[in-house]
Amino acid sequence: MRSILPGEAFPAHTPAASQIFTTVLCHGPLTRTEVAKRAGLSAAAVTKAVRPLIEAGYLVEDVDEEARPSLGRPANPVRVDGGRALFIGLKITGDEIIGVLTDLCCRIRTSRHVPLAAPGPRAVLESAAALVHELLAEADGFGVPVSGLGIAVSGDVDRAGGVVRYSPFLDWRDIPLAELAEMTTGLPVTVDNDVRALTVAEQWFGAGVGLSDFAVVTVGAGIGCGLVVHGRVVSGAYGVAGEIGHLSIDPAGPPCHCGNRGCVEAIAADPAIVRAVREATGIPVADAAEALRLAHGGDPGAREVYARAGAAIGRAIGSVANLFGPERVIISGEGLVAHDLFADQILEAFAASAFGTAGQCDLRTRPLPFEEWARGAAATAIQSFIRSDTY
Amino acid sequence: MRSILPGEAFPAHTPAASQIFTTVLCHGPLTRTEVAKRAGLSAAAVTKAVRPLIEAGYLVEDVDEEARPSLGRPANPVRVDGGRALFIGLKITGDEIIGVLTDLCCRIRTSRHVPLAAPGPRAVLESAAALVHELLAEADGFGVPVSGLGIAVSGDVDRAGGVVRYSPFLDWRDIPLAELAEMTTGLPVTVDNDVRALTVAEQWFGAGVGLSDFAVVTVGAGIGCGLVVHGRVVSGAYGVAGEIGHLSIDPAGPPCHCGNRGCVEAIAADPAIVRAVREATGIPVADAAEALRLAHGGDPGAREVYARAGAAIGRAIGSVANLFGPERVIISGEGLVAHDLFADQILEAFAASAFGTAGQCDLRTRPLPFEEWARGAAATAIQSFIRSDTY
Repeated sequence: MRSILPGEAFPAHTPAASQIFTTVLCHGPLTRTEVAKRAGLSAAAVTKAVRPLIEAGYLVEDVDEEARPSLGRPANPVRVDGGRALFIGLKITGDEIIGVLTDLCCRIRTSRHVPLAAPGPRAVLESAAALVHELLAEADGFGVPVSGLGIAVSGDVDRAGGVVRYSPFLDWRDIPLAELAEMTTGLPVTVDNDVRALTVAEQWFGAGVGLSDFAVVTVGAGIGCGLVVHGRVVSGAYGVAGEIGHLSIDPAGPPCHCGNRGCVEAIAADPAIVRAVREATGIPVADAAEALRLAHGGDPGAREVYARAGAAIGRAIGSVANLFGPERVIISGEGLVAHDLFADQILEAFAASAFGTAGQCDLRTRPLPFEEWARGAAATAIQSFIRSDTY
Repeated sequence: MRSILPGEAFPAHTPAASQIFTTVLCHGPLTRTEVAKRAGLSAAAVTKAVRPLIEAGYLVEDVDEEARPSLGRPANPVRVDGGRALFIGLKITGDEIIGVLTDLCCRIRTSRHVPLAAPGPRAVLESAAALVHELLAEADGFGVPVSGLGIAVSGDVDRAGGVVRYSPFLDWRDIPLAELAEMTTGLPVTVDNDVRALTVAEQWFGAGVGLSDFAVVTVGAGIGCGLVVHGRVVSGAYGVAGEIGHLSIDPAGPPCHCGNRGCVEAIAADPAIVRAVREATGIPVADAAEALRLAHGGDPGAREVYARAGAAIGRAIGSVANLFGPERVIISGEGLVAHDLFADQILEAFAASAFGTAGQCDLRTRPLPFEEWARGAAATAIQSFIRSDTY
C-alpha cells in the first residue's frame, strides 16, 4: 500500500541495511567498526550500507580531524540525523486522542490533545484526521517530510494486518484502522496495541536499549505489560500476550470484569482502587484523583488500599520474572502518581515472590507523561519506516 | 574442546547449512524446494548444503522414478538417515540415573537405569560414566559412532558454560559437569536443565514441531515449565525461567519450600499432595503412589486434594497463556499418572483464568514415560552436534 502514498523510499533495501541503521539509531554515535561488531556483520557490509544513508542525509558523520582511517575505512563515528524525517504518533483512549510530532530519533517536537465526543470508529477517524492535519501543518515549519503515522489503541490489535480486532474501551471489533487512516491522512500507517507500542519505544529509545529480555509494566486505568523476549516484542499466537492485569493472584480476591476473581487489575487498577477506597472509608470518592488525595491526606483506609495494590503489582511482576527471567522490568503508566504510596510494597512483594536468581531482575520505576503513549505510537511508525520485516 | 574428542565433524559448516539440516530433521522428508521455502533460503543454497550431507550419509534421497527434476534440481524428497549417528542422553535425579541410546532422529534404541547411592558429584560421575560405557557397548552393535552425550539435571544450569550452577535436589553448586563428563567418557557433552531439555525434544521431535511459541508443563515431584518464544527456548537473563511451580496463586495457600506461600508447587507437586492427603484423610500415606491409590480407591478427601492440585495447575497455565499467548501447552511429567483425577479441573481452571483469545491455546496432555527425560538430554546433544550457535 505504501507505493501509492507520498514520501520517499528509505535507502536501506536489505534486512542487513535496516539492521545497521537501527543499530546506529539505538546505540549511536558509533564507528563503522563498532556497528559491525554490534550487528554481527562485516565491516565491508557496514561501509556499503552506510554510504547511501549518508548521501540521503539519514546518517551524518562527525568529522574529527584527529581520527585516522583504519584499513581504508573512515574512523569517524556516524549518528542518525534526527531532524531528517518526522513522524506522527496518536494514542486513542476512550475520551481523547493524544498526538505527538516526533523526529526520527523519537524526540517529541510538539504534542496536542483533542477530546473525543463519541468512541465510534467514524467519529474517532474524523478527530484523528483533523489532529493529524494540525500536526502536519506544524511539521511544515521544519521543512522535512512526515514519513509515517503510528496509532496506538488498547486491546487486541493485529499490527501486520493493520486491524483493531477488539478494543473493549472503544467497543470496536474488526476495524481495518490502518487502511482507513491511510485513506484519510495520506500517510503510511502502523497500528499497534498501546502497551506494545510503549514497549517498542523503550526497546529502541528508552530503558530497554541493548536488552534482549525485558518487560514494561503499566499501571493506571488498566494494568498492562509488554514483553520483549529474544529481542522481539511478544504478540501471542492468538493476539493476547502481556495480560499481567489478568493474572489471578488471589482466589478470594474481588471479582474482575473479565469474569475471573482476584485478578491484578481487580485489585490495583484505578477503578478497583476507587471502589476499594469507597468501601474502606465510606467516602464516595468520584475518581482516582480523589482517592489519591484522600490517601495523600493520610487516611489510613485509603492508604491501605494503595498498599494492597502495590503488593498485587509486585507479586505479578514476580510471576513475570519467574516465568521468563527478564533482565529488567520498567514500571510505568499514569498510575505512578501514587508511586510514594505503593513503591515499597511493590518491591517487598516482588522480593518475596521472585524465585532464586530471578530476584536479581532490575526493577525500574519510570514515571512517563501521558503523551509517552503517543510517542510509543510514533516509535512503531519509525520502526515500520526503517524496516518492513519487523513483524 | 570438541577437537580433542573422537568422532567426525558434521558436514554443515555454516548456520544456514545447520538450519537446512534441522529443517529436514524436524519436518522431512522434504524436497529441496520445500526446504528452501521453510528455511527462508534460496533453492541454490539448499542444493549446495544438501550435497555434502548426502555424501556423508546424514541425508538420503528417496528415489522416485516418476519425479521429474525442476530447473535442474532433483525433485526427490530428502530425509535424515536416523541410523547414521547415535547419541546418549542421561537424566540425573536424586536417586537414580536414567540413560537412553537414541539415533539421530531421537528415537530411543535402548534404555537403562542405575540407582544412585549418593548424590555427590564424584559418585554421580562414576555411575554416569559406567552407564555411558554400557550404552557405548550396546552402540557398538549398530556400527555407527556415538556423536554426543546430553545430561539433564534439574535446577539452574548454564548450558553454554556446561556448568550446573545450583541443583537443589542434588545439592550441587557450580559443578563444571560438561568438562568433567567429557574427561570421564571421551564424548562431547551438553548439559542442560531437565525441563528445558524435554522442551527441546518436543520442539524438534514432538508436539512442538513447527510452533514458534509453545510451553511444556511438567507435573510430578516438582512443577516445571519450558517456554519456547519466537522459536527459541527461554533461559532467563539470570538463569531462572519457566518457574511455573513458584507462581504464587493464593496468599492464603500452604507455605512453600522457597519461602513464599501458595506457590503452585506447594499445592500440586507430589510432596504437597502427599502432605495434603495425610491431613485430609488422617492416613499416614508414605508417598505419592500411596496417595494415588487412596484417591483411586474413592477416598473423597484424597480425591479433593487432587482436584485442588488440578485447579492450581490450570490457573498456572492460564497465567502462562495470559503472559505469552503460546499456541499450545503440552502437559507432561510422571504426575500424569493421576491424570484422571485432575484433568477436568485443569481445563476448568484454565478456561476461567485465560483472558480472551488466550483461551484458544491448545492444551494437550501427553503422558511421557520417565525415560523421556533422558531422551530430552539426548535431544540437546543432537542439537549441539548439528549446530554450535544454538545458545
